[in-house]
Amino acid sequence: MENKNKEITQSSFFEYLLKVDNSVLEYLKSHQVATYFKPQDISTAVWSYILRPAKRLRPAVLLLAAGAVGGDRKHALPAAAGIEVFHTWTLVHDDLIDNDLLRRGLPSAHELGSELGKSNLGLSEILAKEYGRNLAILTGDTQHGWATTLFLEMAISGVVSPQVVLKIVYQLQSYVLAKLVYGETLDVQYSYQTTFESRNLTDEQIVEMLWLKTGVLYEFSGWAGAMIGKNSNNSDDPEIQAMKNFTSLCGTAFQLQDDIIGVVGDESQTGKPFGSDIREGKKTIIVLEALRNAKPTEYDFLTKILGNRDSSIEDIKKVASLLRSLNGIKRTEDLAKQYIEKALPHLDIITDSECKRLLLFWAKYMIERTF
Amino acid sequence: MENKNKEITQSSFFEYLLKVDNSVLEYLKSHQVATYFKPQDISTAVWSYILRPAKRLRPAVLLLAAGAVGGDRKHALPAAAGIEVFHTWTLVHDDLIDNDLLRRGLPSAHELGSELGKSNLGLSEILAKEYGRNLAILTGDTQHGWATTLFLEMAISGVVSPQVVLKIVYQLQSYVLAKLVYGETLDVQYSYQTTFESRNLTDEQIVEMLWLKTGVLYEFSGWAGAMIGKNSNNSDDPEIQAMKNFTSLCGTAFQLQDDIIGVVGDESQTGKPFGSDIREGKKTIIVLEALRNAKPTEYDFLTKILGNRDSSIEDIKKVASLLRSLNGIKRTEDLAKQYIEKALPHLDIITDSECKRLLLFWAKYMIERTF
Repeated sequence: MENKNKEITQSSFFEYLLKVDNSVLEYLKSHQVATYFKPQDISTAVWSYILRPAKRLRPAVLLLAAGAVGGDRKHALPAAAGIEVFHTWTLVHDDLIDNDLLRRGLPSAHELGSELGKSNLGLSEILAKEYGRNLAILTGDTQHGWATTLFLEMAISGVVSPQVVLKIVYQLQSYVLAKLVYGETLDVQYSYQTTFESRNLTDEQIVEMLWLKTGVLYEFSGWAGAMIGKNSNNSDDPEIQAMKNFTSLCGTAFQLQDDIIGVVGDESQTGKPFGSDIREGKKTIIVLEALRNAKPTEYDFLTKILGNRDSSIEDIKKVASLLRSLNGIKRTEDLAKQYIEKALPHLDIITDSECKRLLLFWAKYMIERTF
Repeated sequence: MENKNKEITQSSFFEYLLKVDNSVLEYLKSHQVATYFKPQDISTAVWSYILRPAKRLRPAVLLLAAGAVGGDRKHALPAAAGIEVFHTWTLVHDDLIDNDLLRRGLPSAHELGSELGKSNLGLSEILAKEYGRNLAILTGDTQHGWATTLFLEMAISGVVSPQVVLKIVYQLQSYVLAKLVYGETLDVQYSYQTTFESRNLTDEQIVEMLWLKTGVLYEFSGWAGAMIGKNSNNSDDPEIQAMKNFTSLCGTAFQLQDDIIGVVGDESQTGKPFGSDIREGKKTIIVLEALRNAKPTEYDFLTKILGNRDSSIEDIKKVASLLRSLNGIKRTEDLAKQYIEKALPHLDIITDSECKRLLLFWAKYMIERTF
């Protein structure tokens, strides 16, 4: 099966992601728990994000981590499906929290719910909005439970030791979940700060928030994949530790790059409205650095537009261009690169394999991607 | 320990609930996962409902089911704490969905969040409301994860077999959760129907919804308690089946009684605003029966007030009195009694014990309680 000398190219990397996409979707579509989703609107909403084209980076990392430490990737497939569904419920709730209208180029869950309320229940605009909110909450809750069952069934079917699975699910539902919630709450609290109030935020505080929001779930994907691959619940195992540290650092770089894409990204590629991060007043390294370097007139213009939900598209474009010229993008790119450079050596102790090489390619892709 | 001949009285029953309350709270307060809750607003909101006085009926039923089948109740304590926290996250999300302002006599989670947004972050009314919504979503999510870990640790500590725990958590996160979401969604959808549109709802549909919303979680509490008590994952065991059927039927009776309390209950006892079910247009057996028996002028008055969020307290009181005189309360009481009568014989195969007698008392308390 394994081609020892195969060099990873952009196209073989994407081919692998597509393979993961197919396996995960096939697994989920035939999953028994999915027959429970009722009524129809809940089922529609639970499937909506999952069925939209997506990169499936977290399941890919989990499977590759399992393979790279010598495990059978097939045994980790339920966990790969589980991490994708777990990630999905956080997207559904975060989109509602952040008032995001689009996800993967189509209406976010609460927007979809609102449309269903109008078309299926004949609700007024106001009640439809409330119905959309309610459906998004319950959709995320359903996915949260579903994700848990996907992990558990590795132990029920007997392919992975119960003690390994218990430890993984415990970690996901305690430490990981608490960190995700912490990061999302900080993001919400920071976004309510005016640009002036946020002048005291440090780069370290922002990076900490990015790690909480994104790094933690990548760290978990690498750690859990390695635990499953070794069928061991010894967290101190050097290979498991190495995989955890590697994916944690790459995860933070991923979110730094995400912030760049949030400013310069092309709507047709990102599936998110152009400039939504600027409009929502997201506090990023990009913004903090630009403010530090801004001349008084630029500073005034930035504080006027950032976080102003009624800004015109022209002003948004001007802000995007200022964020670049004032070094915000560059500083974030440099930081992301540093994280990847710190990450790579962690894999030195892992024996060479196609899985390892795909992980190394993935690390570099984290900061080169444009969507 | 066990007093074979002790007769259960109202006061010994409440004494037992108080003991459960103490044990569950003590367990939760010293739980390691609770140290993860950050920032402060999340921690405050996660604890808010849990620390308010409450009956702790679900943990009590779970512990009694474990004891009644011959198990050691101490082993089931993490699950008892888990079912209370699981119930709590559904309350937090349901209160947001139902726009309920009070829970246990104090602000609901989103209201509390909104107050924190004003006092701690200095937010405007509109942004504080959004912050309250966001905090309630993330609070419920945190509790959902926490509940899962509480169940898991019975297996991690080794007091209960991993296969039993895996089966219990799988059932909770798939079947039980899906039914709860189904019930809550139906409740939302029915509440958007005008009184006229809802004339085609049958008693069976309403009872199905009540079972989904409440019966399922009681059924789970009895079933899981018995599984833990026997340390067996054989769902076909007659005692486990008996406990499941008994608690399922009682759970539906509980919710029927809840609907009665929702109309005639005293705000100082229920901790909910008087008449909120009437104002929100809740579709209950009480309402359907009253509409069936109403004279045209009464029918018109009921349709005018039910579901009208701006109704005066005088009109709410008139509706409450009509719901009684038109047989709505009586019909619901009769139905609840029938459920309890069907439930009791299921326990015949269980050997007499104080636990069993407390469960039988609990069943009768379900339909006698006034809050």
